Amino acid sequence: MNPENDMRAIFSRALERVDPYEMIKNSIAVEDDTLVISHNGQTLRENLNAYRDIVAIGIGKASSKMGAAVEDILKERLSGGIVVTKYGHAERLKGIQVIEAGHPIPDENSVAGAEAIYRIASRADENTLIINLISGGGSSLLSLPAEGVTLGDKQETTRVLLESGADIREINCVRKHISRVKGGRFAHAAFPARMINIILSDVVGDRLDSIASGIAVPDDTTYAQAVGIVDKYRIRSVLPASVVSVLESGKAGKNPDTPKQGDHVFDRVLNILLGNNLAACRAARDHGTYLGYRSFLLTSMLTGEAREAARFFAAVARDIRRCTSDFAKPALVVSGGETTVTVKGDGKGGRNQEMALSFLNDFQEAQDDMEGIHFLSAGTDGTDGPTDAAGALVGPGLLHRVRSSGLNTGAYLEKNDSYHFFQKAGGLFVTGPTNTNVCDIQLLIVM
Amino acid sequence: MNPENDMRAIFSRALERVDPYEMIKNSIAVEDDTLVISHNGQTLRENLNAYRDIVAIGIGKASSKMGAAVEDILKERLSGGIVVTKYGHAERLKGIQVIEAGHPIPDENSVAGAEAIYRIASRADENTLIINLISGGGSSLLSLPAEGVTLGDKQETTRVLLESGADIREINCVRKHISRVKGGRFAHAAFPARMINIILSDVVGDRLDSIASGIAVPDDTTYAQAVGIVDKYRIRSVLPASVVSVLESGKAGKNPDTPKQGDHVFDRVLNILLGNNLAACRAARDHGTYLGYRSFLLTSMLTGEAREAARFFAAVARDIRRCTSDFAKPALVVSGGETTVTVKGDGKGGRNQEMALSFLNDFQEAQDDMEGIHFLSAGTDGTDGPTDAAGALVGPGLLHRVRSSGLNTGAYLEKNDSYHFFQKAGGLFVTGPTNTNVCDIQLLIVM
Repeated sequence: MNPENDMRAIFSRALERVDPYEMIKNSIAVEDDTLVISHNGQTLRENLNAYRDIVAIGIGKASSKMGAAVEDILKERLSGGIVVTKYGHAERLKGIQVIEAGHPIPDENSVAGAEAIYRIASRADENTLIINLISGGGSSLLSLPAEGVTLGDKQETTRVLLESGADIREINCVRKHISRVKGGRFAHAAFPARMINIILSDVVGDRLDSIASGIAVPDDTTYAQAVGIVDKYRIRSVLPASVVSVLESGKAGKNPDTPKQGDHVFDRVLNILLGNNLAACRAARDHGTYLGYRSFLLTSMLTGEAREAARFFAAVARDIRRCTSDFAKPALVVSGGETTVTVKGDGKGGRNQEMALSFLNDFQEAQDDMEGIHFLSAGTDGTDGPTDAAGALVGPGLLHRVRSSGLNTGAYLEKNDSYHFFQKAGGLFVTGPTNTNVCDIQLLIVM
Repeated sequence: MNPENDMRAIFSRALERVDPYEMIKNSIAVEDDTLVISHNGQTLRENLNAYRDIVAIGIGKASSKMGAAVEDILKERLSGGIVVTKYGHAERLKGIQVIEAGHPIPDENSVAGAEAIYRIASRADENTLIINLISGGGSSLLSLPAEGVTLGDKQETTRVLLESGADIREINCVRKHISRVKGGRFAHAAFPARMINIILSDVVGDRLDSIASGIAVPDDTTYAQAVGIVDKYRIRSVLPASVVSVLESGKAGKNPDTPKQGDHVFDRVLNILLGNNLAACRAARDHGTYLGYRSFLLTSMLTGEAREAARFFAAVARDIRRCTSDFAKPALVVSGGETTVTVKGDGKGGRNQEMALSFLNDFQEAQDDMEGIHFLSAGTDGTDGPTDAAGALVGPGLLHRVRSSGLNTGAYLEKNDSYHFFQKAGGLFVTGPTNTNVCDIQLLIVM
């Protein structure tokens, strides 16, 4: 066993599990005239002969890769389609049109792409099967404001909401009510077409109404709540007039609200959550077991402050090492999720590098060694903050080097400067773009 | 199974395990003329006939209770002794003198008690067996400054160090070098008497040199380091002259340094860590198993910010509930340690109540319910911050009540006002004084 090599192999195996192309190819096939979707031990069958048209649409950073897989599976049965992805994430497809658009700030292409996809949905009828490929980043890539609202108005609304102190749920509630696609409205537009949503989740906990703004799932918020939020934060006078007007007329009952749970438009919608952080964590855990580690999946829903999560892992690591917890050695503890960094310094880094640095700092501050203890935190998309690393990997060798070189872990942590710390000390974990995105993974090995 | 009742029972069982009186009575006995100490599966035997005098001394909040157990075990064999405890923690003993002194600020009684105990140690010879009962709070209860240094000088030194930004290790390094008992010097005074230290640890990780200032264990710091710390923080001119003088003459080799690892004075010292947070956590885990829970001891070394640890537990809880981790239901996850609260508001609370409130707030903010999820965090000493509660217990019923009453979990958390929150909402966990102190315990139950 070589812990650092093993961690790299385990992380790679986790990524393979959520590779957009492989994930679809491994779960979806055409047998005779039936689309067979195998997922979570269940098998779903869809008779393709029931449809005149089979189209693939998609939004998100992985939509182009997902589209390639669908083309390879459906071949000439596919009538066509459109996917919208982030600039630089496109690859040439055979029959599906690929549109590149702005992320995280939507641009004109986001509107053009949304209009094209919306057109497909509007024209679809009960003889149409829509395969809808959804991955992270969809919210900004697909932008189709309500009538009378411009893209600029929408952008301005988001800015005002962010400054007002409204939380992400409140922001999304307002956004969904000034859109023609978000909050399930896209499903409304596509009805009565059959729609199968193939989802790669980049959201902790996989709430379907949060992934790509929930374009094809029920919304549980209302126009009245959106107006309530505008009043709560006293932003009525600074919001674009068009936005206030749409929300008020909606509240007055002049426009139908977003479709709710139980609405008939969802009768024709099937959601398949094909890949998420949990799937990647499970693959990591299983590969750890294969390599001989006593592997344990702790959680795939980790949130909170990155540096504090690190201290929790450090406590767990110490108890494993001295055999005073119920983990067994050689131990692999797997977790996943998406933490945050409250930035106070002007350094460069990301949540994964900050977590690894805080883990190291915990041992450094306690004048403890890290014998037998190895920790990796990395983003599954291959990027961590505005850096070229996916995260960082720390262990006893690195701690030795840090001590002999006199690098001050606490000072770098204070400055949120984890990237420069690891650049000097070694420990940067670099994968390059991975073409997938299911939040972050932490691996803790204790020998 | 009734999770809330079970949690109370499990917490009680954990306390029983570290009850100072029971713990000693359960581990130490006299058989014929031998003192038999059973601990961690090992049995240590000490021939009592080898000693002319057997004295019990002790410092710490539990020393009086520990003394009572030793009296009941040794009976008329005990020649006498002295224990120093916190005001209000004394109970009448048969042959051991009990002195009450100041905590957390040492007072004249701390000096008087230290002098009395030091006198016993100094007079002891190789025909003396000293049973030394150590528990939390010992640092301030036993105060015997170096020659030329007054109690006031010591207090002033601590104040200056705290304000300088020095960390706890640096503060302790200086303190140990201006004391006649700390940093192993007490063992030096007692040599060549035989000394058995019976220790109840209130320190995360149980470093013996941190419990009660390590009066009878090797010190790994030096006069030179202490002087280095004075210079590092540029406090030479504001420290009492007597303190600087003691440190400088020590550095110049005029006084022997604190005894180090391998020093012969420790040849006659035996340390028995009889109770700690881990022991309490194990008892909790085992009682959980007895009650039918799939019980798991996660760590007994938890540190870090209380509200952030809560978010980690919330993530673990959610995954247990949806069966997506390697914990099994009905699950009991046990942890222990001592977190901290970075106080920003002017509310009333403690680290345990803050953790429980943050746990509740995590579900409240996510608009998630807590069905099947119960969480308790409490101090084993029965107090949590400046409140009359040991901690708080949260569950689905409490969350329902909070929602219907409109109490704002986030606002109370922001103000560090967990005590008033739970006073209004219910959930305070009150035990009264427990006579023991092994940090905190968290219990998470997921049905």
